[in-house]
Amino acid sequence: MPKALITTVPFGDKNPLPIEQLEAAGIDYLINPLGRKLKEDELAEMVTDFDVLIAGTESITEKVMDQAKCLKLISRVGIGLDSVDLLAAERRGILVSYTPDAPAPAVAELTIGLMFSLLRSIHIVNSQMHRGEWQRHFGRRISEVTIGIIGAGRIGGRVLRSLAALGATRILVNDTHPDSHISPQINLEWVDKETIYRESDIVSLHVPLTAQTKNMISREHLLTMKKDAVIINTARGGIINEEDLAAVMAAGHLSGAAIDVFNQEPYSGELAQIERCLLTSHMGSMSIDCRTRMEIEATEEAIRFLTGQALQGVVPPGEYDVQRQGL
Amino acid sequence: MPKALITTVPFGDKNPLPIEQLEAAGIDYLINPLGRKLKEDELAEMVTDFDVLIAGTESITEKVMDQAKCLKLISRVGIGLDSVDLLAAERRGILVSYTPDAPAPAVAELTIGLMFSLLRSIHIVNSQMHRGEWQRHFGRRISEVTIGIIGAGRIGGRVLRSLAALGATRILVNDTHPDSHISPQINLEWVDKETIYRESDIVSLHVPLTAQTKNMISREHLLTMKKDAVIINTARGGIINEEDLAAVMAAGHLSGAAIDVFNQEPYSGELAQIERCLLTSHMGSMSIDCRTRMEIEATEEAIRFLTGQALQGVVPPGEYDVQRQGL
Repeated sequence: MPKALITTVPFGDKNPLPIEQLEAAGIDYLINPLGRKLKEDELAEMVTDFDVLIAGTESITEKVMDQAKCLKLISRVGIGLDSVDLLAAERRGILVSYTPDAPAPAVAELTIGLMFSLLRSIHIVNSQMHRGEWQRHFGRRISEVTIGIIGAGRIGGRVLRSLAALGATRILVNDTHPDSHISPQINLEWVDKETIYRESDIVSLHVPLTAQTKNMISREHLLTMKKDAVIINTARGGIINEEDLAAVMAAGHLSGAAIDVFNQEPYSGELAQIERCLLTSHMGSMSIDCRTRMEIEATEEAIRFLTGQALQGVVPPGEYDVQRQGL
Repeated sequence: MPKALITTVPFGDKNPLPIEQLEAAGIDYLINPLGRKLKEDELAEMVTDFDVLIAGTESITEKVMDQAKCLKLISRVGIGLDSVDLLAAERRGILVSYTPDAPAPAVAELTIGLMFSLLRSIHIVNSQMHRGEWQRHFGRRISEVTIGIIGAGRIGGRVLRSLAALGATRILVNDTHPDSHISPQINLEWVDKETIYRESDIVSLHVPLTAQTKNMISREHLLTMKKDAVIINTARGGIINEEDLAAVMAAGHLSGAAIDVFNQEPYSGELAQIERCLLTSHMGSMSIDCRTRMEIEATEEAIRFLTGQALQGVVPPGEYDVQRQGL
């Protein structure tokens, strides 16, 4: 009987359909009993006799695959592939699929929500009010600020279309493959990253974590940003150097930051000491509808594989090339 | 030399233009030395020999006017008139002006920002993360929920246009004077308030505080709302009964609330004990651009009056009628 290990949690929590699908297909499954993101060793120990991994963002390394003697498919619930050693999988003939479209609407909306909190100091005032302090903070409106978006793909593209709909007047965009047709009715300025750091009041990141984007924003870049600018990372931990961000903010630079993703999750680090740093727990994709769609798509891919049907979500060669270039 | 008392604070803080305008016009002015919203007695004591009051939301009652022997114009920085006894002013021949359009964009944006925080539990998770707790909360997207707007005037109208631009699929609206032309391209459902309470996932209030709207939403209305609904008040304190809201939330009803306005400000009350209640400090109009525009408009009105020019922001008779009907 084929066996699937589901490492991502929660799973089937708001909508039990993916679990029902596995049962209807007669697939034996185990949901991560630790209830949190697995460490490399834990996954290596747990994965040994499973055929398929329905995976979250935990590291699926060569070491893990060495223990996964039966593994034939990694079906990622989500879009990021930084956690999967694609080249090690390729060498072993392990297929990798993902759900690149499903998370985008939820991540984009969280990003817009974080922008409003930062612009109006909602998170700071809420903490003050719950402590019994009354301070009125001045804020800025979307139409009054320059917004810089790095990465104009599935998520970044949605963010900039929402911003335009909300009346943004100046949007700077950077992408390694600028697509001037992304939204012809919106007046975007395609610029280099340095211009975004220097001129934006809000910088938001929507790039994958790769060898090229790891520590893309470190101390020197943060210091070229305006003193009262804010930065948002709903993409992947490590794109902004976390320690550098905490250090420059502790020294008074930047009026705020919103960080949803971390080098190590669950996060416990310096940023939690900084009140104007708005922190969320990797919740970008965590709307009920998007999360459900991700789980169903990844589960259906696992079922297709185990029942001999053609896969629909196979990771394209370009993603393997990205990792090859990073080595 | 004519004298103006400026009670609203902060004033001229981000943009000194209104202060420069007063000085250029040769008007003697005093900015509220207490630096916070004045109580009735404090204002009565302070106002005695001023010709013009450039006013915030403090109560300007008959008792205050009895002490204001020289007062000829109240120029409100903002839109709400619940704080001004218009009929007492009328009896004394004191004119009242206001700036009804200036705050709307900032209040509407804060409201949208609060919606996103409530939908994605941003405020709750931020508090948890700063305490070192990692919990991932499911949220909902704008397009997945039913949103009920009570009051479709300057602010409510902006809120519903932004929601439509963000992809809202079901918007319920209530207004005492339904305007079917408010936004012909948006699919709105004009319904009674009871339908809004019963069917909405988000209820947001955009009505003035009057005898009719005071305690408009009390315990019984809150209990007809869905258990996981949220409610937002960026209009005026007292429209939702604060004690009732705290009581029903403490008992587990509603998944969240966002309250920017209070019966008594600065606020200190029960809602501060409820983590899922998002609290801000009457900051609806506090974007730099809108606040500056409000201060300049109210100051220019004061200068027009003191230099014998025609007023431009006089409160229309309908506002007096509202108070007359309330008595």
